[in-house]
Amino acid sequence: MCMDHDSNPNLICEAVSGDGATVKGRHAFLPANADTVHWGYFSKNIVPKIEIDSGDYATIEVLTHHANDDAERMIEGDPGAESVFHWTREGKAVIRRGAGDGEDGEGLGVHICTGPVFIRDAEPGDVLEVRILDVRPRPAGLPKYTGKTFGSNAAANWGYHYNDLLTEPKPREVITIYEVDSTGARNWAEAVYNYRWVPQTDPFGKSHPTIDYPGVPVDHSTIEKNFEILKGVRVPIRPHFGVIAVAPKEADMVNSIPPGYFGGNIDNWRIGKGGTVYLPVSVEGALFSVGDSHASQGDAELCGTAIECSLTGTFQFILHKRDRLAGTPLEGLDYPLLETANEWVVHGFSYPNYLAELDVEKRGQVFTQSTLDSAMRDAFHKMRRFLMVTKNLSEDEAISLMSVGVDFGVSQVVDGNVGVHAILRKDMFLA
Amino acid sequence: MCMDHDSNPNLICEAVSGDGATVKGRHAFLPANADTVHWGYFSKNIVPKIEIDSGDYATIEVLTHHANDDAERMIEGDPGAESVFHWTREGKAVIRRGAGDGEDGEGLGVHICTGPVFIRDAEPGDVLEVRILDVRPRPAGLPKYTGKTFGSNAAANWGYHYNDLLTEPKPREVITIYEVDSTGARNWAEAVYNYRWVPQTDPFGKSHPTIDYPGVPVDHSTIEKNFEILKGVRVPIRPHFGVIAVAPKEADMVNSIPPGYFGGNIDNWRIGKGGTVYLPVSVEGALFSVGDSHASQGDAELCGTAIECSLTGTFQFILHKRDRLAGTPLEGLDYPLLETANEWVVHGFSYPNYLAELDVEKRGQVFTQSTLDSAMRDAFHKMRRFLMVTKNLSEDEAISLMSVGVDFGVSQVVDGNVGVHAILRKDMFLA
Repeated sequence: MCMDHDSNPNLICEAVSGDGATVKGRHAFLPANADTVHWGYFSKNIVPKIEIDSGDYATIEVLTHHANDDAERMIEGDPGAESVFHWTREGKAVIRRGAGDGEDGEGLGVHICTGPVFIRDAEPGDVLEVRILDVRPRPAGLPKYTGKTFGSNAAANWGYHYNDLLTEPKPREVITIYEVDSTGARNWAEAVYNYRWVPQTDPFGKSHPTIDYPGVPVDHSTIEKNFEILKGVRVPIRPHFGVIAVAPKEADMVNSIPPGYFGGNIDNWRIGKGGTVYLPVSVEGALFSVGDSHASQGDAELCGTAIECSLTGTFQFILHKRDRLAGTPLEGLDYPLLETANEWVVHGFSYPNYLAELDVEKRGQVFTQSTLDSAMRDAFHKMRRFLMVTKNLSEDEAISLMSVGVDFGVSQVVDGNVGVHAILRKDMFLA
Repeated sequence: MCMDHDSNPNLICEAVSGDGATVKGRHAFLPANADTVHWGYFSKNIVPKIEIDSGDYATIEVLTHHANDDAERMIEGDPGAESVFHWTREGKAVIRRGAGDGEDGEGLGVHICTGPVFIRDAEPGDVLEVRILDVRPRPAGLPKYTGKTFGSNAAANWGYHYNDLLTEPKPREVITIYEVDSTGARNWAEAVYNYRWVPQTDPFGKSHPTIDYPGVPVDHSTIEKNFEILKGVRVPIRPHFGVIAVAPKEADMVNSIPPGYFGGNIDNWRIGKGGTVYLPVSVEGALFSVGDSHASQGDAELCGTAIECSLTGTFQFILHKRDRLAGTPLEGLDYPLLETANEWVVHGFSYPNYLAELDVEKRGQVFTQSTLDSAMRDAFHKMRRFLMVTKNLSEDEAISLMSVGVDFGVSQVVDGNVGVHAILRKDMFLA
């Protein structure tokens, strides 16, 4: 395996495939810029940015869509971020942000996704294995911030707390800027300052009284920064990708916010370095994208966002063909399955596939009708199936084991399609 | 600290109190037998079994109410268990099992609780700190099982899966017997066999088509044992007490199943050795009881029970007087708070105090109206309050930190009053 892409982005690498054979893999590099990202939506119609073969590697840059909460710390001096966030009275580098009918996407979807990556020979019914080999913070661009990376946490109007505040003014949105060590020497983040969102006018003259459109530049002359926050608090970093997806087949334009069978905005902090995500392919080439990079997140992502922070990941892609899945753990996989060094993690959603379950005109229900209870039910079904299919247990064995040795947790309560995950420890199985 | 109660059950011990002062503590021993348990209910009217002072220790035996699923492995040759489970045509050692109006308690509550322990000087408004210093498996009584402890997992009619099975016959209840190493050398349990519940006739002649009353002896000539189960599967042990409680003030007889502000059937596997539970006292003497011992459980306790297994715990009790709580983390505590070596864990419930929230005639609603969503809401409220009161954070700081560094998980979905816990890592705070 080789990851020295900077010196030679198209290096041929030796690698070991899923079935143990040695394969040759090319190592591609996909930077984030206005030409390589799609913002706020997934689509099977996006022109792929790179094409690779099964076994290949790619190092992919991911930008946080919250960088403009503090442009000095998260955009300036960083050509890739400047390219994506460019927005003046004269024009906008990435016009569409969201899956809305309007040309600007209407903010119906918010995540900056890099890709898609076309995996040659991938067809509907295949499974794409994505190994996350490395995840690194993206350094701030300005010399004054050398060695530092910054992220933003927005306690936003879609947060779980928003209509349930104790203190005035109610409601309010609050941005907290966190600092992360870009060298990797420190395994924690700390808060720098916070500010209350006040109406912002975008370069086209539209006012944003709340955080209602991604990438609106925050004019720091309008806000009041409070540096006296979270003193002596160190947040353990858990760098990961909130969004990891293949393109869904059901619609041409899909809001990036609700996760589903295709992956998407899963927001599970375990999807980090060393993790492997298995995604069911539903369109030709799979069309893999990654976004919503987080320096850290707690289970539930309560206030609506994590420490939203630009990261760069190195991935390997292994394609499992549909005609070779029978009798393997991947047979019939219809959701994003996560494997870590020590665990299998299944992802339950309130709507396992809301794109198929809800008619087009009713898809908005995913934001209003989702419950933790239905997500729990789905996680139960998926873990039962995993134990029965992958571990060859009877239903009775599976149900007993789930009760005595499987942990169910709250992935997120803020992405419309609420998530509950179930964690199975590998070391329970001798074979 | 001394725990050599076997040689001298009333030894005077040196101990360090919560405020750092050295105190003398007596070490009491409370065995489990028909005279020291109350089965299936909590009550402020139960005569205390021992009286202790703040600072004292007690070693308390706890018996699983599922021991009669395999009496040979969990009752026979064990005088304490034989005493509690004694039930012949002529009589029943522990008549009342549950909080029902009928003399037999109607099975409205199932857990064998040892106690109560009267803590001298405890008054309503105080907080009782219970330190769990040790937890040990209770060895099987028969010589042929030397070195072994057994537990039972019942996939029962109150389980989350019960009306949602894939395979026939539907519905069904299944008992799985697990073996645990009583010496502590092995940190895992393994399944021995399972069987499907078939109607059992109790010694008084009443038939139990399902598991509808605790402690019914299972006639092993009526069941079919399947030993070919969960081969090569090792369940990590997490010995803990599902039930840990003080007596609630709201009612004379309280079903032991739904947890609440007084603790009770919290079913969080983190309530084990090294953990400390803080309980709000609402009656004179606190009236502490412990029950529902588990060798292991997963978050959610999906099928209705854990590995139900008799355990013995050693506890220390520290009383925090109400007039000294102001300005401390315990001020206003109105739920069971758990502290472990590395974490603070708050417990949210669908009904934080269903005894006060629901009129007597509507209390059954706790079993039908509880949702994970309302438990999540309560866990959010409690963690926010903990961070604001205990860690002196502003609401904005608390909400950001909850989103980026606090993990919300599913405690249980099977105890009527559904539970969601929130875990705060201590190492996030430098001071």
